[in-house]
Amino acid sequence: MKIYGDFYSGNCYKVKLTCSLLSLSYDWEPVDILKGETLTESFLAMNPAGKIPVVETDCGEILTESNAIIYFLARDSHLWPSHTIDQARVLQWQFFEQYSHEPNIAVARFIKYYLNMPEHRLAEYQSKIKPGYRALDLMEKTLLHSPFLVGQFCSIADISLYAYTHVANQGGFDLDRYEGIKSWLKRMQLLDGFVTMDG
Amino acid sequence: MKIYGDFYSGNCYKVKLTCSLLSLSYDWEPVDILKGETLTESFLAMNPAGKIPVVETDCGEILTESNAIIYFLARDSHLWPSHTIDQARVLQWQFFEQYSHEPNIAVARFIKYYLNMPEHRLAEYQSKIKPGYRALDLMEKTLLHSPFLVGQFCSIADISLYAYTHVANQGGFDLDRYEGIKSWLKRMQLLDGFVTMDG
Repeated sequence: MKIYGDFYSGNCYKVKLTCSLLSLSYDWEPVDILKGETLTESFLAMNPAGKIPVVETDCGEILTESNAIIYFLARDSHLWPSHTIDQARVLQWQFFEQYSHEPNIAVARFIKYYLNMPEHRLAEYQSKIKPGYRALDLMEKTLLHSPFLVGQFCSIADISLYAYTHVANQGGFDLDRYEGIKSWLKRMQLLDGFVTMDG
Repeated sequence: MKIYGDFYSGNCYKVKLTCSLLSLSYDWEPVDILKGETLTESFLAMNPAGKIPVVETDCGEILTESNAIIYFLARDSHLWPSHTIDQARVLQWQFFEQYSHEPNIAVARFIKYYLNMPEHRLAEYQSKIKPGYRALDLMEKTLLHSPFLVGQFCSIADISLYAYTHVANQGGFDLDRYEGIKSWLKRMQLLDGFVTMDG
């Protein structure tokens, strides 16, 4: 399996972390977004959306969208629960991540940490703070009472949300007020096979 | 089963259309977003995110996020494929819908059609047009060569994307240029059990 990705992208890290937790081997093909490498003709032929991560399976199948990729990798593992209602709850968190969390927390981080807060994106950055905290508040509500997002065990929902939450401070978000989230971050880091973003 | 929703919300229509295609019965509890009914204390107790649709199952389980809900309803039906790679492709389209399609096409429609284009949201409306067309272009690339988004049969991916694509004109998007999308819309409307948004 080949993973096309950028080590500092949380979306790519989801795939790397899933592989590590499941001891799956892969080749990593570095792709630099800032250099426009997702917009070359050959990359667009593979993924017309011009986004990473992209996975090429050993059978030559191309998969995109980080959360769909990690479903594919974890479908038959302990990271995907067996009851349909729990599976739906895992997906619920993953859709929440793509709609309400990533567009605020990851984009704020991108503007502040990658681009070093250029003047012309300052208003956009500021517009991400309130909804970003709202997303964290929602996670906290669950994580104050539950070790993982869907019950007692880690699932791909936790991987999806861990990816950008653990670096939310790089986007200017203060996690100190969130006791539930902080305990959960530590719980994730203690999992067998855990690997850091730059590890 | 109880569905809390608004008839003119595409996200709620996904749930209604899935139920209709699968002949599932339900009670519909109307919720008016514009009147702030998703932000009352009792609604927030059920869904702290303050969003519709919400489903309450016969066992009293609460589910949110339209695409997770329709997975739950269709998990054991012909609307969910049997091979893992096809399942991942269905999810890929659903995540695409929530990240790249809905935030542009549905929000443009909301501003133009529901709110009647207020001056203070004009710039936001305009910012949705280019990425909205980009999302339609990507759908067209697949639908020019495939009867449904994932192969030969309708899946919940098609339901997710049908919801706001078929009313994209209400957001100011011109579908005339998209032969693949137009044929697919007709194909959807011919499915056994199809129901319209206001039907």
